[in-house]
Amino acid sequence: MSNAIETSIHAMGGHARSAARKLAALDADEKNSILQKMAASIRKSARRILRANEKDLAGGREKDLPAAMLDRLRLDEARIEDIAAGLDHVATLPDPVGDVLDAWDRPNGIRIEQVRVPIGTIGIIYESRPNVTADAAALCFKAGNATILRGGSEAIHSNLALAEALDQAGAPGHAVQLIPFTDRESVAVMAKMDRWLDLIIPRGGKGLVETVVSEARMPVVKHHDGICHLYVDAAADQEMAVALTVDSKTQKPGVCNALETLLVHRDAAAGFLPRAAAALRARGVELRGCDATRTMLADVAPASEADWDTEYLDLVLAIRIVDTLEVAVSHINDYGSHHTDAIVTRDDAAAARFQREVDSACVFHNLSTRFADGGEFGFGSEIGISTDKIHARGPMGLRELTTYQYRVRGNGQTKAPVQ
Amino acid sequence: MSNAIETSIHAMGGHARSAARKLAALDADEKNSILQKMAASIRKSARRILRANEKDLAGGREKDLPAAMLDRLRLDEARIEDIAAGLDHVATLPDPVGDVLDAWDRPNGIRIEQVRVPIGTIGIIYESRPNVTADAAALCFKAGNATILRGGSEAIHSNLALAEALDQAGAPGHAVQLIPFTDRESVAVMAKMDRWLDLIIPRGGKGLVETVVSEARMPVVKHHDGICHLYVDAAADQEMAVALTVDSKTQKPGVCNALETLLVHRDAAAGFLPRAAAALRARGVELRGCDATRTMLADVAPASEADWDTEYLDLVLAIRIVDTLEVAVSHINDYGSHHTDAIVTRDDAAAARFQREVDSACVFHNLSTRFADGGEFGFGSEIGISTDKIHARGPMGLRELTTYQYRVRGNGQTKAPVQ
Repeated sequence: MSNAIETSIHAMGGHARSAARKLAALDADEKNSILQKMAASIRKSARRILRANEKDLAGGREKDLPAAMLDRLRLDEARIEDIAAGLDHVATLPDPVGDVLDAWDRPNGIRIEQVRVPIGTIGIIYESRPNVTADAAALCFKAGNATILRGGSEAIHSNLALAEALDQAGAPGHAVQLIPFTDRESVAVMAKMDRWLDLIIPRGGKGLVETVVSEARMPVVKHHDGICHLYVDAAADQEMAVALTVDSKTQKPGVCNALETLLVHRDAAAGFLPRAAAALRARGVELRGCDATRTMLADVAPASEADWDTEYLDLVLAIRIVDTLEVAVSHINDYGSHHTDAIVTRDDAAAARFQREVDSACVFHNLSTRFADGGEFGFGSEIGISTDKIHARGPMGLRELTTYQYRVRGNGQTKAPVQ
Repeated sequence: MSNAIETSIHAMGGHARSAARKLAALDADEKNSILQKMAASIRKSARRILRANEKDLAGGREKDLPAAMLDRLRLDEARIEDIAAGLDHVATLPDPVGDVLDAWDRPNGIRIEQVRVPIGTIGIIYESRPNVTADAAALCFKAGNATILRGGSEAIHSNLALAEALDQAGAPGHAVQLIPFTDRESVAVMAKMDRWLDLIIPRGGKGLVETVVSEARMPVVKHHDGICHLYVDAAADQEMAVALTVDSKTQKPGVCNALETLLVHRDAAAGFLPRAAAALRARGVELRGCDATRTMLADVAPASEADWDTEYLDLVLAIRIVDTLEVAVSHINDYGSHHTDAIVTRDDAAAARFQREVDSACVFHNLSTRFADGGEFGFGSEIGISTDKIHARGPMGLRELTTYQYRVRGNGQTKAPVQ
């Protein structure tokens, strides 16, 4: 059994490599036309996909999956239309492949061009949301990559039905493949298969990411925590600071770019904190604070060391009063997850310093942390938000699913003089 | 013992992280001044370094190291001056940190800048050449990164002496640290230390690279084989093709961008191969060929499947006659190492197709493969040549030792309407 899974997944890897060569040769129009056919095929297969999804839901109810997970798993006609519309949308995005990133001439007459090309083959490992099957495949495909998808066991019937629909759209064979095995071993096999996969992207909880990071031989681009900070500077516009705090914390608290820790300059605290606390509490936010915060606000639970390290993903906010911008920066660099951190200030020099010294993918000035998102950045669509520093950092769109090659033209230059 | 090594290396990791924050805040002039002081310190410490090197050489002779390895290990006054001059040279290179890679405004008024920043902390694991201690540290430092170096046991005394000299140049403490342990365990500890190292670069043989790739939790940028090809097209200028073949194969056969397999279009073979063979044999090159090659050239040993897969790094060349450009491209993609491959042709359409379809870091037209090199590309200096596709591909200079962050400025925008 174990050997059969490995053989089967390796065969898919070989197919993916061949498909990648064909995909690299497609032009934007060909890819867009296939994406539109994928969308049409998803719409046409809606009833079959819904029947498959009903099986997954029944299995989930049997296993007593929590309601939130069942909701992530659930497809309906509107969600299927969203998936199809997403494919149509990716077809409208500019194709990054072939862009010349840089070009220069050398004194010896050779001309160097750095040209954007597909990465090749990408493995995506994800959990319960079946829409990832289509969303991730579409982005990888548009960037010219072959994809091997490995979804969670809860959604296997939905995923297989979606993959079958994608497969009927005239893409080169094996452009998008779904691994039919959902045991843990299939993840391990993928992670070791660096001959066939150029990149692996885990999309899921900490356990999954940890497994992939430990086992992968190929590069991994991953999303870890989003422990995002907002620092209210001494020179903040306090009304703006209240609005940004409330928005960053409460507009959608369960996502990675939501605010988790609020840092407040001592000089701003007396004016800002009572107003912010009232606005936050009006929206049901539980506050936990440092000692200084607790002397200023009533009914604030003490924040422990663990709070600074926690991604609540909930209506809870940790608050610390700091003496200087330097302390705020150190706190963020020490406890943060290098995702998104914001400063609110009217002082441009303070903002510049904050943005230069905070070691995070996104550093914002006078803006809600919720704007750290491929859509808000104008990428059209995103495959995720990387908290890694290598290859892609922050929101990842189509460009981040490509690499480059050097195309160099000479006229017979040799290193040694020709004799 | 084992635990002591781990504790000690982890402490170095924590120091590196702190140093990286200080390095990120240095401007180009400050970094350049320190690099010049490092060069001066190396020159001033020359006698101490040479004494340390003599210990390593004595140890190497005792262990009966091969002459080539002893030569790589050997320092003399000229080599120490080269190391110092290399540091001075890095000081003259443009600082990539702070470059704005892209900038745009969103319809809601926020402005996004993608700015080049240091990666942070980089681990370099290398083998016998002590000059890597200074070369790698200088490039990482110039790009604003803190470095943890782990060299081979053969060169430990030389490396310690070089690191001590670098340490006396006024860089922020722990900017460059050398691990004093040379057992295998220290590599494993580094490879697992993703909290403290953002990137690891193995520079050495296959065994070392394999160990690092298997064990590393953080991203690895590596150099695998250089199985480089030259394809002589039907429309090649045959005189140029001979010159490029000879140069690619013989100008320096022991390096990664030297030619290993020659592919010749059937229509070019009769005119080209006898001239090429004569020129190659005049330089002592042993030829191994496919059946078609052997019918055309006398005294050519048969090339087996293993030859297409081999990086000879020696005066040996495998030759295959192909019917079409497509077959040449497939051969390169199937057997090559995605390093550097060249086409010789007067047909620009054939060249464009070759460059688009060959999946290698460097694809050359009418140029010796030996130009695949950071120096020849104008990078000033290189940390290595990546055969990975992620983050950095091909020659890696200072730019490839950086990442980016998004600095975004708003004026109070929130996702939810402010109430």
